[in-house]
Amino acid sequence: MNFADRLSDAVESRRSQLVLGLDPDPSRLLPDAVGFAGEGTAAERAARAVAAHCALLIDAAGSACVGVKLQMACFERLGAPGWQALVDTSAAARAAGLLAIADGKRGDVPHTAAAYGQALVGTTPTPFGDVVGLKADAVTANPLLGRDALEPIVEAARRSGAGTFVLVRTSNPGAAELQDAGNGEPLRDRLARMVDELGADGVGSRGLSDTGAVVGATEPGIVAAMRELMPRAIFLLPGIGAQGGRVDQLGPAFAPGRGAALVTASRSIVDAALEAGRPGAALPAAQSLREAAWELSA
Amino acid sequence: MNFADRLSDAVESRRSQLVLGLDPDPSRLLPDAVGFAGEGTAAERAARAVAAHCALLIDAAGSACVGVKLQMACFERLGAPGWQALVDTSAAARAAGLLAIADGKRGDVPHTAAAYGQALVGTTPTPFGDVVGLKADAVTANPLLGRDALEPIVEAARRSGAGTFVLVRTSNPGAAELQDAGNGEPLRDRLARMVDELGADGVGSRGLSDTGAVVGATEPGIVAAMRELMPRAIFLLPGIGAQGGRVDQLGPAFAPGRGAALVTASRSIVDAALEAGRPGAALPAAQSLREAAWELSA
Repeated sequence: MNFADRLSDAVESRRSQLVLGLDPDPSRLLPDAVGFAGEGTAAERAARAVAAHCALLIDAAGSACVGVKLQMACFERLGAPGWQALVDTSAAARAAGLLAIADGKRGDVPHTAAAYGQALVGTTPTPFGDVVGLKADAVTANPLLGRDALEPIVEAARRSGAGTFVLVRTSNPGAAELQDAGNGEPLRDRLARMVDELGADGVGSRGLSDTGAVVGATEPGIVAAMRELMPRAIFLLPGIGAQGGRVDQLGPAFAPGRGAALVTASRSIVDAALEAGRPGAALPAAQSLREAAWELSA
Repeated sequence: MNFADRLSDAVESRRSQLVLGLDPDPSRLLPDAVGFAGEGTAAERAARAVAAHCALLIDAAGSACVGVKLQMACFERLGAPGWQALVDTSAAARAAGLLAIADGKRGDVPHTAAAYGQALVGTTPTPFGDVVGLKADAVTANPLLGRDALEPIVEAARRSGAGTFVLVRTSNPGAAELQDAGNGEPLRDRLARMVDELGADGVGSRGLSDTGAVVGATEPGIVAAMRELMPRAIFLLPGIGAQGGRVDQLGPAFAPGRGAALVTASRSIVDAALEAGRPGAALPAAQSLREAAWELSA
């Protein structure tokens, strides 16, 4: 089934466009998670505690969300046990009815891009049997290497009913330096055209495509301009809360429909739980963001 | 010790600027490697065989090389056991006196980029003790997100005496679409200036910097132009052999000194071993590339 259709269905049934960002820091875990560390090496114990931390947050705040965004760097820094925690957290999200977005911003030459497709949304044939990858519902991808390098990821995702969110305009302060540069046509506009074209073969029954775009919520004017260039793309909108973006300024992102954009928030939800010392405190923070986006997209 | 100095020393002592590219495909392994698969899941068996395949190639061809380049995607597609194979292969390379380059082309917002730094060249503090990352000697990084996103990776590498190779002009056919675009100033030139500036604080005793650039060997004219813009950067030059690049056209890359460029080759070395069915056949292929680069840089 087409990813855009799956996502629109999930948005409608869960009445949420909120994505819980999970970028676990082993030094800032919920107190309840630390008890799950068990025995073993520091990496094994930290990875188990990280997986428990994420599972507690999914359990506490998942009802207000449509998906989770797993920041791969935060798992990779715990080595092989960290990768296992990534797999376990992805499975916990799916078990809770949430879409799992693998946020690794991968991008490489075509032959290697295909290997990333296998790792994240596909399967790798081996003489010992097929190895199933992360089974992500969607991935983020970096387009710097060009269209031939993006296509293997987009196509691998499409074959699995998954989606791809291509970086177009990121939310960090330095994003402007390259993404807004280019005399006449900024790089972000070129990227937007590429996303629109790559998505043409992945349009679902509601007119939205399985090939979306990462557009920072920190620059509402740019969000509106990007929507003009990518009328069918689902926008993944980071930068709400800690980075300064505000949900009420994101109306144009939702113009094509309720499933046309996802708002991701990490620190603004997770910090509520950390400050209270209990996962349940994440829920009101998530509900408030959920409601703000839902009302905006009415 | 500064990475550029470490690399120059290694180039001189090993009389090689050749980097063995390891992008193992579990469907195309050396026959001797398959016997190391042992018991367990398909992923565990494939990962052990992949690590053995890489170790056999390092053993066979390492004497002609100064480093290895580990294509992270090819390990990640085997999940947590694959990450362990990446760690083991990196350790095998170091044990053979080779520099290990983690080729993951990572790039993310500053907070996340710092986590990639921990994963690849640093350490992550946890309540259970510090977790040491991959201990790579150098990493590849994607600069699309801008300078503030690159800096945490460059600085993490610098603190560990490691290096960063920033994508400036890649070797894939579609690279031109974005990297050569931009009226007046192509994106690759902007990237080159950024690399030169980021590298200013990492210049070693031979005038080369710890902040280098990935420049495809497939476009010799561009290699020469990039050398003008980045006189202190070490160039990592992919695209030799299977992708059409030729060592004898890369003279300008080596203009600042013998340690100013690295030639990476994967299929042109590894396929010799695969076709012969024995690792030893990789050595003549590697020696021939080593000699071509060494003579060119005299």
